[in-house]
Amino acid sequence: MDAPLESLIAQLPEKTVITDPVSMEPYRYDWAHDETAGMPLAVVRPTDADQVQTTMRWASEHRVPVVPRGAGSGLSGGSTAVEQGLVLSLDRMRSVEVDPNLRIAVVEPGALNVEVKRAAAEHGLWYPPDPSSYEMCSIGGNLATNAGGLCCVKYGVTTDYVLALDVVLADGTKLQLGGPRLKDVAGLSLIKLFVGSEGLLGVITRGILRLIPAQPSRSTLVAIYDDVETAARSVVEMCRNIRPSMVELMDNASINAVEDYRAMGLDRSAGAMLIIQSDAPGESCSREISVLQQICDTVGARETFVTDDPEEGEMFAEGRRVAFHAIEKRGSIMLEDVGAPLPVLPELITGIAAIAARHRVEIPTVAHAGDGNTHPIVVYDASDPDSTERAARAFAEVMSLAISLGGTITGEHGVGRLKKAALPDQLGPEVMEVSRRIKAALDPQGILNPGAVL
Amino acid sequence: MDAPLESLIAQLPEKTVITDPVSMEPYRYDWAHDETAGMPLAVVRPTDADQVQTTMRWASEHRVPVVPRGAGSGLSGGSTAVEQGLVLSLDRMRSVEVDPNLRIAVVEPGALNVEVKRAAAEHGLWYPPDPSSYEMCSIGGNLATNAGGLCCVKYGVTTDYVLALDVVLADGTKLQLGGPRLKDVAGLSLIKLFVGSEGLLGVITRGILRLIPAQPSRSTLVAIYDDVETAARSVVEMCRNIRPSMVELMDNASINAVEDYRAMGLDRSAGAMLIIQSDAPGESCSREISVLQQICDTVGARETFVTDDPEEGEMFAEGRRVAFHAIEKRGSIMLEDVGAPLPVLPELITGIAAIAARHRVEIPTVAHAGDGNTHPIVVYDASDPDSTERAARAFAEVMSLAISLGGTITGEHGVGRLKKAALPDQLGPEVMEVSRRIKAALDPQGILNPGAVL
Repeated sequence: MDAPLESLIAQLPEKTVITDPVSMEPYRYDWAHDETAGMPLAVVRPTDADQVQTTMRWASEHRVPVVPRGAGSGLSGGSTAVEQGLVLSLDRMRSVEVDPNLRIAVVEPGALNVEVKRAAAEHGLWYPPDPSSYEMCSIGGNLATNAGGLCCVKYGVTTDYVLALDVVLADGTKLQLGGPRLKDVAGLSLIKLFVGSEGLLGVITRGILRLIPAQPSRSTLVAIYDDVETAARSVVEMCRNIRPSMVELMDNASINAVEDYRAMGLDRSAGAMLIIQSDAPGESCSREISVLQQICDTVGARETFVTDDPEEGEMFAEGRRVAFHAIEKRGSIMLEDVGAPLPVLPELITGIAAIAARHRVEIPTVAHAGDGNTHPIVVYDASDPDSTERAARAFAEVMSLAISLGGTITGEHGVGRLKKAALPDQLGPEVMEVSRRIKAALDPQGILNPGAVL
Repeated sequence: MDAPLESLIAQLPEKTVITDPVSMEPYRYDWAHDETAGMPLAVVRPTDADQVQTTMRWASEHRVPVVPRGAGSGLSGGSTAVEQGLVLSLDRMRSVEVDPNLRIAVVEPGALNVEVKRAAAEHGLWYPPDPSSYEMCSIGGNLATNAGGLCCVKYGVTTDYVLALDVVLADGTKLQLGGPRLKDVAGLSLIKLFVGSEGLLGVITRGILRLIPAQPSRSTLVAIYDDVETAARSVVEMCRNIRPSMVELMDNASINAVEDYRAMGLDRSAGAMLIIQSDAPGESCSREISVLQQICDTVGARETFVTDDPEEGEMFAEGRRVAFHAIEKRGSIMLEDVGAPLPVLPELITGIAAIAARHRVEIPTVAHAGDGNTHPIVVYDASDPDSTERAARAFAEVMSLAISLGGTITGEHGVGRLKKAALPDQLGPEVMEVSRRIKAALDPQGILNPGAVL
């Protein structure tokens, strides 16, 4: 390809376009570290939507592939550079403005999730979606993947908080969708279509997010189990009538990985641990927690304890959040994001253990259990081809298992490149075909994030 | 058009296809009673998705327009028959099955919203979305318009509760989207695209709706104001920090219309009335209600009172719900559904009053005030051309006013045919163009609900 990159450089401010291979290197991968990543022609780091439009017009004219990118913390290879393409990094577009009267945050895509939360908190407001990586993931990436998190069992996922989006299409056209109004059904639900579209349909340059009043104080219930299946059964039972604000699960391997990584006094002998929170207001909170505790005890927890101390509660939640980093220390990893209907969560979890045993790989599992969304993490030795092959087989089988249980290959991370092969198994040919038609309607040349999802 | 209707009739069970003009008459209109409705070739009343597919295949082959239809309670003319087209009425597909373990309702489109609510309640579960017409509107229509209601100020709208959809496309292909899982980001967000698509993209034949635990008991606060603008200011103030489960507004004209229609002892002299509910659990409920009451008093309510009696509370909510029918008794009506960002709700409401005065028409207004979503109802005399013209002008100006305030022409009813002319003013040419491209990608012949929305 010999696209005249100079003509793009000339249209953008100095230092917006990077072409030095060493400087480009960090922009080639997200956390999935897809080894098939190409060497881009350039990395473009715009500071406003106009520059995004300029870039897309140029790319469209010269049919150059473009991979949009936020903070690069994606776990599915959704931001993997394409050979001789552009990486369009939104990391310099970071403004966050909160309007307390409208109860909104107007955000640029490069702003971190935590920056949105902080800006909201300054006004006594709250932006709920909280991926475990909230301190380092960008809000643009959250929008592109419809990210979830820990509190979404009660408060929903990213799409539930999006009131407006500005999106630059493949041809450089900028759409302004929605506005700071709480209900709006004028026209097709295009905002919802762009949320979770993983860079395939357009580049999000601005969003308006709905904020809600600050979360009330929480109480935390920790339940220790001899085995993970009983823990999963407790989750099914408790979610039948109650809406806790967090229901996280860690299995024995992930508990031990976290303890190795950062000693926090977790019970290394536990088969599984549940971390449950309630934020019901006032006296209802302790009442709700005590009902939850009773359920855990009845279903078969070995030990349960409650803390109203926010710091102690946060310590357990933080233990859960660092699990990914802790497990990463144990070898190379393939991170799953499979989900299942809640009642079959126990079958999913025991099935994963069986797959691990069959392929002789370690698969520590943490889960947003209240949503039926699990993160089995396949650990392997990348220098050993046999281990790598067994891991890859286990990775694929976990997704097949989820599909066979009526579940999904991805609950919140997105398909990216890593789960692309399994997507048709879940969606079927008709849905794949319609998805391709919509992709073609918005990006007829197919220059946006080629190789991902479809 | 001389499509061989006999060939469709032959493929469907007896009595599925109606061609007798008298029997077809009720299927030509929804509640908007669009006088431009055509005389359909036939009304098809399938009893399962196979028959919907048969019908769409036939219509596609013969390029016959198809207008899908639920209970016909739409208020925007979204279900208005097309000359020599088919009306595809889903009123015989009414099954509702609740699975309490999965906490879902599996519904067919013709089931009424109230039937879904009742089936859920039998299991101690709740389907929140509650359009005022919930006792007579179909869940399919709710899905097609992304319907709202009274409790969505706290609990969200239809799209927030949809886990899965079966959709038959224009060419008869059936898509099965989603499943009974709480989080799923595999592929494009097609479910969300079909929700609110007003019959333009496909025919919904089945849905899986998420249910939540039954709503706790509610307390009701009624606040009476001398003028509607002060009432609106109270709403802005209270929604800053609190999430009530209902915040409805009635102005003087709608209060009097309701009293004329069904005497319930409302204060006919009030400039406006707010009906506010809290369903915060336990003791928090009365605490929240007393904070809300204090806000109303401080901002300038003439009188406030609280009731914990659910029946008395429901009586006020019911008064609000019947407003549409009550106002309908006063003449011909054009029903608006305009919304605005919450802080400018007072400007929207005073602006509507100015428009009413300027055009010498009565515009009683009720509102889901906590969402900034209002229903100004233009009352006119259809037998008087001058009155009709003034009403039409007022109707258009109210939408222009909403757009100028950063609002929307429709918060929950949909665009249909009645608001079609104003849609480009709100969305702009780029968004219209992209909407048309998506429509063309899914319905290249344009046979689905032609004349509506776009």
